[in-house]
Amino acid sequence: MNTHPIAVVGASGYTGIELLRLLFAHPHAEIVAITSRSEVGKPLSSVLPRFRHLPGADIPFIAPDIDAIVDSGARTAFLALPHGMAAEYAVPLLERGLKVIDLSADFRLNDAAVYEEFYGHPHPAPQLLGEAVYGMPEIHGDAIKSARLIASPGCYPTSIILPLVPLLREGLIEASSIVVNSMSGVSGAGKKADVSLIFAEVNESLRAYGLPKHRHLSEIEQELSLAAGEKVTITFTPHLVPVTRGIHSTITASLAADFTAVSSCLQKAYGQAGFVRLLGEGQCADTAHVTRTNFVDLGWHHDTRTNRLILTSAEDNLTKGASGQAIQAFNMLHGFSTNDGLMNL
Amino acid sequence: MNTHPIAVVGASGYTGIELLRLLFAHPHAEIVAITSRSEVGKPLSSVLPRFRHLPGADIPFIAPDIDAIVDSGARTAFLALPHGMAAEYAVPLLERGLKVIDLSADFRLNDAAVYEEFYGHPHPAPQLLGEAVYGMPEIHGDAIKSARLIASPGCYPTSIILPLVPLLREGLIEASSIVVNSMSGVSGAGKKADVSLIFAEVNESLRAYGLPKHRHLSEIEQELSLAAGEKVTITFTPHLVPVTRGIHSTITASLAADFTAVSSCLQKAYGQAGFVRLLGEGQCADTAHVTRTNFVDLGWHHDTRTNRLILTSAEDNLTKGASGQAIQAFNMLHGFSTNDGLMNL
Amino acid sequence: MNTHPIAVVGASGYTGIELLRLLFAHPHAEIVAITSRSEVGKPLSSVLPRFRHLPGADIPFIAPDIDAIVDSGARTAFLALPHGMAAEYAVPLLERGLKVIDLSADFRLNDAAVYEEFYGHPHPAPQLLGEAVYGMPEIHGDAIKSARLIASPGCYPTSIILPLVPLLREGLIEASSIVVNSMSGVSGAGKKADVSLIFAEVNESLRAYGLPKHRHLSEIEQELSLAAGEKVTITFTPHLVPVTRGIHSTITASLAADFTAVSSCLQKAYGQAGFVRLLGEGQCADTAHVTRTNFVDLGWHHDTRTNRLILTSAEDNLTKGASGQAIQAFNMLHGFSTNDGLMNL
Amino acid sequence: MNTHPIAVVGASGYTGIELLRLLFAHPHAEIVAITSRSEVGKPLSSVLPRFRHLPGADIPFIAPDIDAIVDSGARTAFLALPHGMAAEYAVPLLERGLKVIDLSADFRLNDAAVYEEFYGHPHPAPQLLGEAVYGMPEIHGDAIKSARLIASPGCYPTSIILPLVPLLREGLIEASSIVVNSMSGVSGAGKKADVSLIFAEVNESLRAYGLPKHRHLSEIEQELSLAAGEKVTITFTPHLVPVTRGIHSTITASLAADFTAVSSCLQKAYGQAGFVRLLGEGQCADTAHVTRTNFVDLGWHHDTRTNRLILTSAEDNLTKGASGQAIQAFNMLHGFSTNDGLMNL
Repeated sequence: MNTHPIAVVGASGYTGIELLRLLFAHPHAEIVAITSRSEVGKPLSSVLPRFRHLPGADIPFIAPDIDAIVDSGARTAFLALPHGMAAEYAVPLLERGLKVIDLSADFRLNDAAVYEEFYGHPHPAPQLLGEAVYGMPEIHGDAIKSARLIASPGCYPTSIILPLVPLLREGLIEASSIVVNSMSGVSGAGKKADVSLIFAEVNESLRAYGLPKHRHLSEIEQELSLAAGEKVTITFTPHLVPVTRGIHSTITASLAADFTAVSSCLQKAYGQAGFVRLLGEGQCADTAHVTRTNFVDLGWHHDTRTNRLILTSAEDNLTKGASGQAIQAFNMLHGFSTNDGLMNL
Repeated sequence: MNTHPIAVVGASGYTGIELLRLLFAHPHAEIVAITSRSEVGKPLSSVLPRFRHLPGADIPFIAPDIDAIVDSGARTAFLALPHGMAAEYAVPLLERGLKVIDLSADFRLNDAAVYEEFYGHPHPAPQLLGEAVYGMPEIHGDAIKSARLIASPGCYPTSIILPLVPLLREGLIEASSIVVNSMSGVSGAGKKADVSLIFAEVNESLRAYGLPKHRHLSEIEQELSLAAGEKVTITFTPHLVPVTRGIHSTITASLAADFTAVSSCLQKAYGQAGFVRLLGEGQCADTAHVTRTNFVDLGWHHDTRTNRLILTSAEDNLTKGASGQAIQAFNMLHGFSTNDGLMNL
Repeated sequence: MNTHPIAVVGASGYTGIELLRLLFAHPHAEIVAITSRSEVGKPLSSVLPRFRHLPGADIPFIAPDIDAIVDSGARTAFLALPHGMAAEYAVPLLERGLKVIDLSADFRLNDAAVYEEFYGHPHPAPQLLGEAVYGMPEIHGDAIKSARLIASPGCYPTSIILPLVPLLREGLIEASSIVVNSMSGVSGAGKKADVSLIFAEVNESLRAYGLPKHRHLSEIEQELSLAAGEKVTITFTPHLVPVTRGIHSTITASLAADFTAVSSCLQKAYGQAGFVRLLGEGQCADTAHVTRTNFVDLGWHHDTRTNRLILTSAEDNLTKGASGQAIQAFNMLHGFSTNDGLMNL
Repeated sequence: MNTHPIAVVGASGYTGIELLRLLFAHPHAEIVAITSRSEVGKPLSSVLPRFRHLPGADIPFIAPDIDAIVDSGARTAFLALPHGMAAEYAVPLLERGLKVIDLSADFRLNDAAVYEEFYGHPHPAPQLLGEAVYGMPEIHGDAIKSARLIASPGCYPTSIILPLVPLLREGLIEASSIVVNSMSGVSGAGKKADVSLIFAEVNESLRAYGLPKHRHLSEIEQELSLAAGEKVTITFTPHLVPVTRGIHSTITASLAADFTAVSSCLQKAYGQAGFVRLLGEGQCADTAHVTRTNFVDLGWHHDTRTNRLILTSAEDNLTKGASGQAIQAFNMLHGFSTNDGLMNL
């Protein structure tokens, strides 16, 4: 079977591990290099016991060295690195002829000034921002097919942008009225030693955080503004809740058209989109149905008493919200089938 | 020490158990009767092993019979019964001279027509609606002191009404812009055999429910309208999340005045309120800090980009959201100290 | 690709759902019939929203009718039915020429008297006990290959029998000294409405149950006795803990030989067994590494102070402990590759 | 009311916080000093928001300085410090005339050589070992009443020693046959930044650890040997499970007498012990009934097939397993009522 050699740069964090989980089951992916600064020389299966006995899982970690990555024969590199560090690898890997799919926030914004506003430092490689494609296949599919550098979307943004873009394009809601409340599982905070993330602090805790200007607002508003044809500013409140995986977003907006147009708009936009599941009017999304899958579920209601739309979306933050979506873009980029590697429950 | 004889009618559900937990530690409460249709004759400690060895926990359950309750010597009856059934007990117990604190929804609404709209059947005792006092001590303290029948507020309503009432009274927010998203622990659904509540269905699940017209909207909007001096209609989305206890509400509203007025308004309203803890501007409430207590925590932010207020509140749905608040009203009603029985963490 | 038509009888419980999850990803399985008494006529994807958009998931539930199952063209039937009911289906399906893989306890015991002792009623089809094969591929592989009726092992038994059989065969431990303590996730209790299983009762609860003579002892001791060549009786304490999936067993036994023989014995027995992962001496098994997989992990220690072996095993109760193991046997039965359908993490 | 001035040294970890939670509700305790190296000068309520609005919770943290502690007027110091560090404070505080209740392991062993064997370094103050009293009120009550230095027992040891001591004293079980399996909540590992303790690593994980010679064996075996009148060595396997609080121990041992003697022995030993709840034969302990209380629950079964006793115990690791038991000893030491401060559920 035709396989494509892949490097996963930064393979020991949660998004890296999720990439490996999915790529090992991908019919056209061959993992030829995995990097981790702290695990050099160790076989994957010894660092991540979950992978033991999986064919191929004896591959050793290498240092995140450009030459070594290129020498592995990889033709596409997934970057699962912290924000700010991905650009250091994207630039030389692109120069060496690899395709790069970056899961960090480094190339998601079109505008270096917005990057600096939200991330607090100048963009490390502004010359690439014009070329980078925001890797949401349902929205930017054509651009993805011919991209060199794909900026895979963030977890919260995916759950918010996907349902709102068609509604804004058709002018069905008032852009200025959008209020989003999201809940995220703890894996979204990464695999790191932090007292606020230990079990005894998170269990039986419900809390908002990152108010009022979460970094993800920058990419959310960029994409919503593109769809609306005008600057869109929203209110967004993320919450940390005691689940390992999953993001649930509840989106409220005043209707600017008849409510019946909502269902037909979403049906037209996503009726054929394999990974967007339209639960329909009167239904509520539930993360339990999407964890470990690349699906995003959408349900919606008409609050007739206030004439607002209430839309709920559910996804897995590590799959459709990160690594699954990156592989979905990878499939598009290389002409593989949409479902390849992404149909296991 | 001066003690007051109490009956807990419906003592085997979660709010009933929470009443018992708090009343056993109350310096002025003496539990003289506990009822449960299914546990008649059994000592409390044999039905609820958590209570074993607690002084007084050998008290047996009796049937919920009016004569037996009266004969126990109880002077105040707490009703922890399903909605619709509480009225059957409230009427005769009041006639027999007891004070009644009802934790169901039966007497929370001033208007029998609104009751029928939201609960789907005519009100069973409309003649009492005028007399019943909505038992939120911070809002209706004076009425509580002289009440015969107290309708203790619902769990979601408490977390929403408390922060909004002073802001609406002073006209600081636009009433028509209020959007509330709440998360509730599973104990809020009661102790009942229901597949959708079993651990394997709830764990790792995040979901909205009850859209778009949850029953609690009726009492929320009643109290907000009273505060605003006009009919207030809001959008409210409750969510079920995998914690046992706790409610977290995130309230968003457009500002109608300068944001700085928010802090001073809340400070004025609740600076001396023992159970409302003002975390202050820039702070987020966390249910982990309020579980098993009668506190409700409030934090707030200014979303300057949209000129909205974002306010978060956290409480325990069974304590401040139910049984603790009922005891807080009980203390007021009988002139006990505010903190009596409610200062254990 | 060569596919085999399959019926899943009783497809709406947790083991049935797990069978579907795995079989949809199996390269040689074609699901031609799924039954559920309560969901007749509804498409799978409408009853189990997790399956929406999966190719083939529009298949409707049919009633568990023998003729209808046969008419579907199924050549192998998986029975995911309650204990006692499976025999009613196994007998006629075998008569109609299907292979039967039964996930209930109905055919696990060789001796009808032991069945009656542990299950409290006479065996419904004792004539089949001689023929039924206990479907643990690592132990009864040869018999599985030519079986008509496979009795797939229980969840606890798998985690206990697998590590102990080789040690007993070689006489490395004293059979009379075996003490087993197991912890199980809540899905092991099934998808049923039971107050003791609701989230608020299970969360933050640790408890033993089923003492002192759990039904699973019958099949555990049957297999251990076969291995030891003498009657083996053990002490077994199962515990319910707040996880959805996973079984962990800690096995303690006095050594009857030098401890170093343990590692070589296990290595000889399972060094080539794809789904048994030998973590090695000094390592502890962790269910986090095996959930949703068909792996069982084994680690072991020498308690030199008491000269006991302490062995820990971890598996997913629904996968290696039920549906995954059934598919592993299915692969053997039909000559498919060992790993088919079982290598997704 | 007669109050006793108290210092809590090391008040920001989980056992320190639990001491504060209980002492604030204690009728005879007055907290006059709380120390924390990292929080000096901050009021308790600002560091631990759960304590806000509790009368007295404005007390500021001070540095753990001996003079400052003495100057606070404290007459009893609770030490909630890491093992090895407590001795540094115990010695000078005793010299300055305070009573010391140490929650660390520093003074639990009678024998400095055993300390060094299990803790890996020489004992820091061996001259105090003879005087220190192992602070388990049900076993060493008389010594506690006249002690200067109380070594409060460990969490696992409490759940194991309490049920076994009377059985060993009366020779009802074979000491060499004791096998203990325990499960602990994550708070037992302390409030520390450690990747293995973060929610996403602990949730849905069941694992043994610390095999085969956990440090707590030293104090367990010391007390069991004292009871048996001979050296007792046991096998002990602790497990980490996803709950915040609670320890459950399952104890298995061969009977050396008639099983009926077990119930009468335990009844005789603990029938009047307020905090030991004898669930009785045929009952299983459940941590859900003891969390946040000072109770330890015991149930037991006769495994007639192997003639073993199976005994289950449940406690809260932070309360009866640490801070509650320390306050129970404090009550004894100063002649307060047994239940003071310990009867809130």
